[in-house]
Amino acid sequence: MGDPRGVGPEVVVKALCREDLRQVCRPLILGDPLILRRTAKTLGLGLKIAEVDEQSIREMPEEGLGVLPLSRLIPGKDPTDVAPEESSRASFRYLEKAGRMALAGQVEAIATGPVSKGAIARTGIPFQGHTEFFAGLAGTKDFVMMLAGDRLRVALVTTHLPLNEVARSLKEEKILSVVEITGWSLKEYFGFQNPRIAVAAFNPHGGEGGLFGEEENIISRAIDQARGKDWTVSGPWPADSLFHRVVQGEYDAVVCMYHDQGLIPLKLLHFDTAVNVTLGLPFIRTSVDHGVAYDIAGKGIASPRSMEEAIKMAAQMALRKRRAPNPKTRMDHG
Amino acid sequence: MGDPRGVGPEVVVKALCREDLRQVCRPLILGDPLILRRTAKTLGLGLKIAEVDEQSIREMPEEGLGVLPLSRLIPGKDPTDVAPEESSRASFRYLEKAGRMALAGQVEAIATGPVSKGAIARTGIPFQGHTEFFAGLAGTKDFVMMLAGDRLRVALVTTHLPLNEVARSLKEEKILSVVEITGWSLKEYFGFQNPRIAVAAFNPHGGEGGLFGEEENIISRAIDQARGKDWTVSGPWPADSLFHRVVQGEYDAVVCMYHDQGLIPLKLLHFDTAVNVTLGLPFIRTSVDHGVAYDIAGKGIASPRSMEEAIKMAAQMALRKRRAPNPKTRMDHG
Repeated sequence: MGDPRGVGPEVVVKALCREDLRQVCRPLILGDPLILRRTAKTLGLGLKIAEVDEQSIREMPEEGLGVLPLSRLIPGKDPTDVAPEESSRASFRYLEKAGRMALAGQVEAIATGPVSKGAIARTGIPFQGHTEFFAGLAGTKDFVMMLAGDRLRVALVTTHLPLNEVARSLKEEKILSVVEITGWSLKEYFGFQNPRIAVAAFNPHGGEGGLFGEEENIISRAIDQARGKDWTVSGPWPADSLFHRVVQGEYDAVVCMYHDQGLIPLKLLHFDTAVNVTLGLPFIRTSVDHGVAYDIAGKGIASPRSMEEAIKMAAQMALRKRRAPNPKTRMDHG
Repeated sequence: MGDPRGVGPEVVVKALCREDLRQVCRPLILGDPLILRRTAKTLGLGLKIAEVDEQSIREMPEEGLGVLPLSRLIPGKDPTDVAPEESSRASFRYLEKAGRMALAGQVEAIATGPVSKGAIARTGIPFQGHTEFFAGLAGTKDFVMMLAGDRLRVALVTTHLPLNEVARSLKEEKILSVVEITGWSLKEYFGFQNPRIAVAAFNPHGGEGGLFGEEENIISRAIDQARGKDWTVSGPWPADSLFHRVVQGEYDAVVCMYHDQGLIPLKLLHFDTAVNVTLGLPFIRTSVDHGVAYDIAGKGIASPRSMEEAIKMAAQMALRKRRAPNPKTRMDHG
């Protein structure tokens, strides 16, 4: 459900009203029934929110929405009018439960609403973000942040790092690991038999033979090591002309060296429909591509597009995993 | 005309056949009549190429194309089959003459075809590129590389520099100068009464308050200094979501900190229609956005789209300059 004080409850309720979403999955909200009911009422949605318990989640209601109650916050008139610390602690509890249920196979995928890293950390819970939390819970070190839309998928080698520190963080093993996790995930979860992966260069014009930087040597060595598996990998390609070729259909995903290299083209093509996917975890996890947006929470104006896409993608990935004739884990593969 | 061995003659001839281009300008090719005739013949174009001399360029032929002959190379059967050194020297001569004619007011704008930096430099002529050459000829130190298409215009603070060296090159005065030259040029040449300029941040999430880098402080100071002139300037904006807003019409141009920050979105939106414009020179200069492409030269398959757009933009800029009620030079302004 995300942070009760943010736009999470609103986008979750709005998204799960959609008939097309209900046809591809059986959603279970981990959250707060009172907050969800107040949100639905404020939005003018005549929606039934039914509490379910953990033992009976397989018999979720056909109509309305099933909620596993993990908090019972008392909202004011405005559904986002909740005590901040309780709200942040509750948002963390939803995540923790989601991770444990996914590890135990009780749910087939997780789609997360937005929480505030800062607000959770201020309650004394050590928390660096959703992605790092799930990786820690699963004991996974090699995970990849992918942002995906219909026309473009980007996997990031580095994420929230000052741009000036990216060059020294580009290690051959890390790039290799991102290519492999991306390739494996495209096969397993996205339906690509032989994924075509492009790797972006770091410097302008791909370094122009060393004239504008040397990082392309590291990237090239990683690409050489990643060849000959169940995917096609090529690069390092000059980043400025690469994304046009991807959109023309030449590649299924791009491995990017830094945050904005991937997110500039992604957000230009998919402003509010991109989904954040964590690859390399032992379970499926997608997320909205936006934050808690406290400034517009409770106003009824938040767009549920990214949440809808995150839920749809999680459902599609789960279906592909179910159908896989001989599912391997990434550990077997790598 | 660009390098006789490259795709320059082909894209120039193809572009100047277009009736719509002939209606917005009177083109004069600085180049080689034999090469151009052979190119037109190879392309199957029944085009008259007439030599004109410098004294009579105001009486250029109504039909066909006028050429100021600056070389008389002898091509083989293939028009690009020319002695490399002579060809490179000739390509430099066209540029030099173009710059001198523009400075003397004999022509109102220059649109350049592609030359090879390396090939010219190998003949012993010190040459770093078109842009630097024209700036040197004009005695201009503050010039800006802008890439422009219909939907997006980007001006670059740094260009062909290893990405790892960009952070230390971001100086307040340089950023200020790029904003000012961009603002002034948008008014003078692009018809914007009150240009709206967005300045991109350098780090992911705009540095998130210093968490992911400090360069935004330098950028902010430059923006503060650039305010209160004949334009609106704002930023530093997180780069990933900025270009979507530009395409929605919020800004007229984006000042970018590094090459790929501007060229990734530009080439995604305008793959073969972007024009390279040098701002800050005392004359108008546009250029194709591609190189000599020796590998496809003479094959008749080069796209003239960027050359067409470069000529059209040069003509539009010249017309706006002509119509300006009280033209100032940038020197007056700054």
